[in-house]
This record gives sequence, structure tokens and C-alpha cells, in this order.
Amino acid sequence: MTGTKTPPTRVCYRCGREAATGARCSCGEPLWLKIDGTDGVDATGRADRTDATRFSWPETSGSSIWRYRDLLPVSRPPGIGSVVGGTPLFRTPRLDDYAGCELRVKDESANPTGSFKDRGSAVGVARALDAGDDWVGTVSHGNMAMSTAATAASAGLNCLVLVPDDIPTERLTHIARYDPTLVRVEGDYGRLYDVSLDLPGVRFVNSDAPLRVAGQKTTALEICEAFADEGRTPDAIVAPVSSGGHASAIWKAVCELRDANLLNAESLPRLYFVQAAACDPIAEAFRNGADRVTPVDGGETVAYSIANASPPSGNRVLAAVRDTGGAVLSVADDAILDAKRQLARRAGLCVEPASATTLAGIRHLSTAGKIDPEESVVAIATGTGFRERSPLAETPESVPIGDLPERVASLVSG
Amino acid sequence: MTGTKTPPTRVCYRCGREAATGARCSCGEPLWLKIDGTDGVDATGRADRTDATRFSWPETSGSSIWRYRDLLPVSRPPGIGSVVGGTPLFRTPRLDDYAGCELRVKDESANPTGSFKDRGSAVGVARALDAGDDWVGTVSHGNMAMSTAATAASAGLNCLVLVPDDIPTERLTHIARYDPTLVRVEGDYGRLYDVSLDLPGVRFVNSDAPLRVAGQKTTALEICEAFADEGRTPDAIVAPVSSGGHASAIWKAVCELRDANLLNAESLPRLYFVQAAACDPIAEAFRNGADRVTPVDGGETVAYSIANASPPSGNRVLAAVRDTGGAVLSVADDAILDAKRQLARRAGLCVEPASATTLAGIRHLSTAGKIDPEESVVAIATGTGFRERSPLAETPESVPIGDLPERVASLVSG
Repeated sequence: MTGTKTPPTRVCYRCGREAATGARCSCGEPLWLKIDGTDGVDATGRADRTDATRFSWPETSGSSIWRYRDLLPVSRPPGIGSVVGGTPLFRTPRLDDYAGCELRVKDESANPTGSFKDRGSAVGVARALDAGDDWVGTVSHGNMAMSTAATAASAGLNCLVLVPDDIPTERLTHIARYDPTLVRVEGDYGRLYDVSLDLPGVRFVNSDAPLRVAGQKTTALEICEAFADEGRTPDAIVAPVSSGGHASAIWKAVCELRDANLLNAESLPRLYFVQAAACDPIAEAFRNGADRVTPVDGGETVAYSIANASPPSGNRVLAAVRDTGGAVLSVADDAILDAKRQLARRAGLCVEPASATTLAGIRHLSTAGKIDPEESVVAIATGTGFRERSPLAETPESVPIGDLPERVASLVSG
Repeated sequence: MTGTKTPPTRVCYRCGREAATGARCSCGEPLWLKIDGTDGVDATGRADRTDATRFSWPETSGSSIWRYRDLLPVSRPPGIGSVVGGTPLFRTPRLDDYAGCELRVKDESANPTGSFKDRGSAVGVARALDAGDDWVGTVSHGNMAMSTAATAASAGLNCLVLVPDDIPTERLTHIARYDPTLVRVEGDYGRLYDVSLDLPGVRFVNSDAPLRVAGQKTTALEICEAFADEGRTPDAIVAPVSSGGHASAIWKAVCELRDANLLNAESLPRLYFVQAAACDPIAEAFRNGADRVTPVDGGETVAYSIANASPPSGNRVLAAVRDTGGAVLSVADDAILDAKRQLARRAGLCVEPASATTLAGIRHLSTAGKIDPEESVVAIATGTGFRERSPLAETPESVPIGDLPERVASLVSG
């Protein structure tokens, strides 16, 4: 058992300024946590983090995010937060033709509440416990709300979830199961992200908060470690992007592994992030060669969980793809829905539409010659589709039990 | 890479007769696979299984069911079948008071299609690939249907799913996503289980089929290995029971580990299996001291996925609990629903009602003095609740964004 870890220093990816607290640098960009081994000892007097430059792949067999404890700023919490991560990464050979490459999927739906958000929630809740907080909170009406509420519940913390006033009842029921304090907020929900950070007495772990980013970097640590076990590096990692928190986290992992000489700086995995075409401010900035994202008037998309018209970490995402030779792109709803169908029918995976943007994006990139057929590409399936409802395409035939042998013989010979 | 494994011999748990094929012994009882190291070599001429008496915990780090390849009769398949298992097992301290013991949950919802069924589907599909079959099938309108269809899809096999004629459309859509051949069967759905085994050209992997049982024993192997890592044995393992296939599999694992001297024959984990009171033929037989289960006219229960009025492996379940000093019990729907709420609110777990029978059963057993407060008990949460819909208990309050600081200050101080 390690002791309670001390609060980590934050640092700006762009200007390098450090800060003891807060989510934003004075330059306006989001902060993330500094992992440099100089800022803290645990309760037993030991240095509580490994300098990233001295990090090496752990030799322990545990498969949760806590195998990377040397790169995490918190102590392992009780409850579901103790077992997040360690999700399957596997080849999906029947999708190679469609994807145009050697495809692997990282299945984040295996996390306790069915999405990658559990990684960040675990670290946020762990920090709240370390700090003696009673309350955590989040601004979300989707996966992050469920994840934060469930992780807090299992650790014995109170949780405040701020949802939009017009949230559909069905979505509310999914969050309410975990019994957080739910408040519907009348007014500009877009403003809430910043407003929440100044609310008294609640540690808000929003989507690009430094603690959440610290937890979510473990997705990419796991991917890179699995490849390293085979003496390889993925050629590309592809994920949906919304606020830019998860995308930033993936880049943070790549940066830390580069610092540790566990990734070759000359051949980093290219990071590709995908948006829905109806709401694609980061992709638009990338297409325009800009280094700042301009908010858009986003339209409706089937990938509702990534429709973020004003992404707080958008600029950081542009920096991430330029650092690694990747790109931000967007895909149309019909391509997303087709990719979702293919994931179910050729890989046995039921994902939410946002997750299917990855496969649609990969198909687009390989068609455009940006990904080669022999390249190893990882699509991060960020969240489960089990909670979704979809129409039935056709009603199956009905056969009397006595006619089954004949009908089945005909089926299998046909 | 091992070669293609040879077909395993089957054996009757009760009379010891062996058979080369089939699901039932001539005595009428279900067969399971013999793991004794004498019956087969792989394509490279090596013995393809370790004698269970010589099995030891693997030293490899892989966390899927394939770490137990020495006890499995098949080769690892491609697709999601390659990564099933390795699900989280963790303490849920906030449920200890409710459960009346030191509780752990084995979260089977982390499997690719959200239930323990994926373990058995992986082995069934793997065997079909080893045998060169084109078709697998199953008789199910729930988790097993989704699991078999998805596992087959990801491995490139055709899949036939036989569902009842009156299946609700919503349930059909969950299965149809994976694009199996769906046939609604008019007539006595209860008879289909046996009828399907004689259908031509399709390998049916029904709920207590020997191959499915072989896959599903890995749940208990994982539980016992995790305890063994700490030099311990669980005092009790608790699971829902329906056909008796999974329960038989858990017992099979215990038997193999006892044979291997990895469990002490004098202090086996007690196996407890739980039914819904509205349809509890195995519990009734246990209460009556019978060694044969009599079919019942089952009523409706919220735990619809375990309402089996004529369980094909029911007698085997009675043998399992008597061998280990456990019991079969049943719990009322209100106790199931209360346990389900507690799992969400105190452990962050959203499970289907069938899974919650475990916690309700444990509470019942500890209240009755059959489980002691200091005992380590594992509840197997067999399937996800994400696909369920539940009514919203109350509509959350609505607060104007400008009033949030005051409202939140009041909340956190209250």
C-alpha cells in the first residue's frame, strides 16, 4: 500500500507555465499534470511518482490502470475505480478490407460503466479521496455523468451532476440509477463548463480537467505497452474527439513514453481524431491550417456524444496531431452508421455512433492514401452501444417447430 | 501457436459413462468434457491438454480465458472470442453491511457482449472452427443469443438463432445487430432445446452444452486464481441459476482445481445458486431434499433471464451444492429489485435483475446465519443492466444557471 499522494503540479502544454491549481493556464490554454518526479512524497516519505524519463513498463501482472501508478498522481481508490482499464485490444481481421489496413480495436466498453470515461473518473475520485473532499461533480448528460456518478457511489463520495434542463427522460434514467444529486440547469449549458469550476465545495472533474486527462492517458499507455510486448509500435491510433480531453490524454501518454524512451521520437504513432461532419470545429481548423479552433454553430448528428461546438481543448488537439504527423478529420452520418453496422456484423462489437467515427475515419484515410494496407492501426471504441435503441430492419421469418429440420437443412445448404 | 485441438471425450458427472459426442448421457444426465490428458494430441503431435491433476496456475500475464488453455479443449479463435474473460473481481466495501459479509463482485458485464455467456460462446465457436463447421446456433432470446451471434460474426461463422415467435421487438433488435440468421419458432419453445440438437448442419451451443460449460468454468478459475494469489480460498461463490449450465461449469472448475490440489478438498468454496421465487424448480428440489428436479409451472419474475421451469442441468446443480456444502435458494422479486438498486447506488454497478439475485441471496443467507460476517464471498454479476429500461423515480429539480452558486452551497453544506 502506498500512502496518500500529494497534489500534483499543473503545466501548460503550450507555454510551459506551471500552476498549483486550476484547469486553465493564464495564456488561456488547458493545463495538464506535470509528471516529473520532483513534486511530492507520499505519506510514508517515499517519492510518490516516477520521473517520466525513468519510467519503464511495469513487471506486475495487474491489468487495471493502476499498473501505471508511477505515472498517476493519486492513490488507488476503493470500488469500481480500483478496476478500470485493462480493456481488450484485439485484431478484427474481418474488418481489414473495409478499414484498408491491419485493424485492431481497443474496446473501452469493457469498463464498469461502459466507456473510457471511467479511467478519468477513477483518478478524479481518487484525488477527491486523497484530498478529503466530500463531493465530486461533473457537467455531462452522457457517459461522463454515468461514469462519475457510479465511481463516486462505489467510493462513498457524494456526486453532483449538472444536466441540461431539456435532457430526455431516458438518458436521465441511465444516470439516475447511480443516485447522484441531479440538477437540471436552465440557461446556456455551454457556459456551465466554466461556471462549474467556480462552484463552492464540489470538485468538478469535467471532460478536459487535468485529473481526468491523467486518467484517460492510460488508454494509450495500454495500447503502446501491448505493442511493445511484441517489439512494435502502432502506426496510428484513432479516436473520436469532442472536448479534446481524451485526445489530449492520448497525446500526453505519447509524450511521456517519448520522454521515457519507450517510443522512438522519429516514429511516433500518428494520432488521428475524428469528428462528425455536422459539428467539426477542430477538423475545420485543421483543414484551414489554423492553430486555434473557432467555435461553430453545430448541427445535429447521430454521434451526439461528440457534438461539441466549442471544444475547450481543441487547440491542444491541433498541437497533438501536428506533433505526431496525424490529422483531425470529420465523417458524415451515413458513413458513421455504416461503420457502426460493420463493427457489429464483422467484429461482434456493439458501439455507440461516436465510437464508429473511428472506423469511418480510418476508411476515409486509407482511401485517401494516408494509411497503408500493411499498417497496424488501433481504433478506440470509446463507449458501448448497449444503451442505444435501433429500429429493426426486417422481421425474421416464423417457422412452425415441426418444419424446422427441413427449413434449417435448406438454410445451411443455401 | 498450438495446433488445432482434437475433439474431447465427454463424461457423465453422475454415472461416469463416457461418450465421444452428444450432450446427454444414456442415463439422461448432461455430459461435460473430460479433462484428463489422455484423449488427444494437437496438429503438431503434442499432447493437447494438461492432465487436470497436473495443472498449475499459469505464469503468463494474459488475462483472457486463454490463460487456461491447458484446461480448454479448443484453439483460441479470432475476434472477440480471443479476448473474453479476465473480468474484474473487486471488493465492494459499501455493500458489506447489506450483504452481511466481506463481499466481492465478479463483473461479467465487462465481457464483449455484456455477459458471462461470451466465455462459452468463445469455446463453442472455437470448436466449430477447429472442426471446419460453417454454422453455429443457439436457442435463446437473451444474452446467449447476442453472445453467440457476435462471437460467430467476429470469427466469420454463420449463426442461427432460434427465438420464440412472440419475442418482443426490442429484444430482437439487440440480437439482430450482429446479423445472425434469426428464425422465430411457432410451437413449444421449451421443446426446442432438445429439438435443436438434432437439426442438420448446425453446431448448437445451448446453455448447458459441454462446450459451453467448458468455457464458462473459467469464471470460477479466475475467481479461485485471484484468491490463490493472496494465499486464500473464497468461502463462498454465489451465482444465479437458470438452466444450470453456468452453475455446472462453476462446479466443474472446483472439481478440476481439487483434482489439481489447487483447492483443499476439505475447505472448498461453498457454491450457492439463486433463483427467482416465482420460478424456482431447483431451489424447491433442494428444499425438499430431492436429488432430481421436477419441472414447475413458472410464474413471471423481474429476473426473466433465469426463469427456467425445466432446467436441463438442474440435477447436476443439486449435486454441485451438496458436494461443496452450499445450497440452492430463491428470492422474491422485491428483494431482487432492492439488491439491484443497492448494487448501483453503493457499488456503481448497473446489472440485470438476474445478477442481483446473488446479492439478495447472500443477504438472505447471512441473515439466516449461513454466511458469517467475516467470510469472503464472491457474487457473480452475470450480465449488464445497460440494455434495461427503468422508470425515473423522480424528476430532478431545475435551477437557473445564475442561481447555481447559492443552490450548490446549500447542497454541500446540507
